[in-house]
Amino acid sequence: MMSTPLVFPKAEAAPLEPYLPPLSASSVDGHVDTLPFVTLTFATSLDSALSLGPGVRTAISGPQSKAMTHYLRSRHDAICVGVGTAIADDPGLSCRLLAAGNAGTVTAAIPGDSRGLNDNSAIPTTACQPRPIVIDPRLRWNFTSQSKVMQLARAGEGLAPYILTAVPEPPVDKRRLLEEHGGKFIILGPAQSRGQSSKGGCQRFDWRAILAAVREEGLRSIMIEGGGAVINSLLSAGNTELIDSVILTIAPTWLGQGGVVVSPPRPPGEGAQSGPAAQLTDTMWLPLGEDVVLCGRIAR
Amino acid sequence: MMSTPLVFPKAEAAPLEPYLPPLSASSVDGHVDTLPFVTLTFATSLDSALSLGPGVRTAISGPQSKAMTHYLRSRHDAICVGVGTAIADDPGLSCRLLAAGNAGTVTAAIPGDSRGLNDNSAIPTTACQPRPIVIDPRLRWNFTSQSKVMQLARAGEGLAPYILTAVPEPPVDKRRLLEEHGGKFIILGPAQSRGQSSKGGCQRFDWRAILAAVREEGLRSIMIEGGGAVINSLLSAGNTELIDSVILTIAPTWLGQGGVVVSPPRPPGEGAQSGPAAQLTDTMWLPLGEDVVLCGRIAR
Repeated sequence: MMSTPLVFPKAEAAPLEPYLPPLSASSVDGHVDTLPFVTLTFATSLDSALSLGPGVRTAISGPQSKAMTHYLRSRHDAICVGVGTAIADDPGLSCRLLAAGNAGTVTAAIPGDSRGLNDNSAIPTTACQPRPIVIDPRLRWNFTSQSKVMQLARAGEGLAPYILTAVPEPPVDKRRLLEEHGGKFIILGPAQSRGQSSKGGCQRFDWRAILAAVREEGLRSIMIEGGGAVINSLLSAGNTELIDSVILTIAPTWLGQGGVVVSPPRPPGEGAQSGPAAQLTDTMWLPLGEDVVLCGRIAR
Repeated sequence: MMSTPLVFPKAEAAPLEPYLPPLSASSVDGHVDTLPFVTLTFATSLDSALSLGPGVRTAISGPQSKAMTHYLRSRHDAICVGVGTAIADDPGLSCRLLAAGNAGTVTAAIPGDSRGLNDNSAIPTTACQPRPIVIDPRLRWNFTSQSKVMQLARAGEGLAPYILTAVPEPPVDKRRLLEEHGGKFIILGPAQSRGQSSKGGCQRFDWRAILAAVREEGLRSIMIEGGGAVINSLLSAGNTELIDSVILTIAPTWLGQGGVVVSPPRPPGEGAQSGPAAQLTDTMWLPLGEDVVLCGRIAR
């Protein structure tokens, strides 16, 4: 695949540590071990837009933020996107961070060599790659052997996805293709409507069932990356308590009206007089290139 | 009025200086002196909301950000809000920053005294207060002698507003009340429709005419504070070149769907494939309490 490796300096990684899943395998302090550690991460414009419009892939944040995203991927067992993102972006869902021998090591950039390449550095092997989780209740994603995530899996530069769906019997050809690459379908019971349906009512997420299924696969941490429907659903009342950490990037740009925005619904039955939909606490703002990174935890 | 004085430490004020109008009276480098120096400043949630809903006064940013706003007011000849903000907030539109003798001086907080009061410190006198400018094309603001801005003017703790309107003959009683307090109406020619009308089409802003009128009053700098219609209009194509500086505060909160948001319209005729509506350059991110302050200039 010849993916371009990325470098994220140790000095920039260190302050993120308190917001990341523990490096040891011991269970997280006070954390129910039937669910994975959940990090919500995404990048928006100043007007909270993920993209210029539905299905429009939009570069918002700068190169340092991109390197940070791949560092975060290296620190999670799984990374998760919704079907909309899978269809719109054909994402690789791999970690392209340079690793010098062991997973999670941050290779310092070598002055004069922007890629920091050296003899013993390489893209992480499959053993160190995060598992892509695609939430696709109705199997809308028509992946093929040419989908980027499959190409990366064949090249040993990423893992094939686990696709979470409510369709009880996925098509045999898709199932075979997925399993040949090391992925699989995970069938969840029909998603329950709990008033948390996303815009348009097409997709429904039961986050506890999704996360429990992920944990049952031995995956102890998951980074949830997008898109808009997934993020707004997770930031809704009743779901925010599942989030252990939030790491978001803001770029100094207004995408303007019509973008796909992160703005969670307010609790049902409350109008403008209600409080904010969600608040962060234990916050830390880290300028990163032209962008800023905000780390925090959901205020209870 | 017994307004509570505010303190903004010098150390926090210093990095803002490159984004503020020059302290000397000499004209700004390359700046046309027929228009004032324009600073756009406001505070939003992570989802770019100024408030929970139209007319709902919402506390978003923390106490340090509030003190910064009053410091910024001390550094401008005029401060500007739209009629919607005047009606919804009954704002004081004054500077409550402690000044020790001369305008613009930042009084350092005295340890152990959170208000930093000392013998020669006081709310700035009228001579040092910014002039409130209220944009009210159709005279919707029914101000009275009890409006906060009028009370402050009587107390010598602020100035009465200049109200910019397209109504050729404002009511005599309002005019008298305004002039008794030192304010006035400024009649602009009927606002022209240039495709820049705000939401609902009720208000139209011709920013060049507004700013020229402000400059003709001898006011060399203006800080534009809100609300949503005013900000989105100023951030629209064709108006952004009037902005010299942007200083915005972001709080780590999602107000949720239904808020009044800052999100400028995209240039007409362009769809999702267009670029961003506006971008900042020369940016600086300053963490301030729980919030972050972003300073920048509009990228041309």
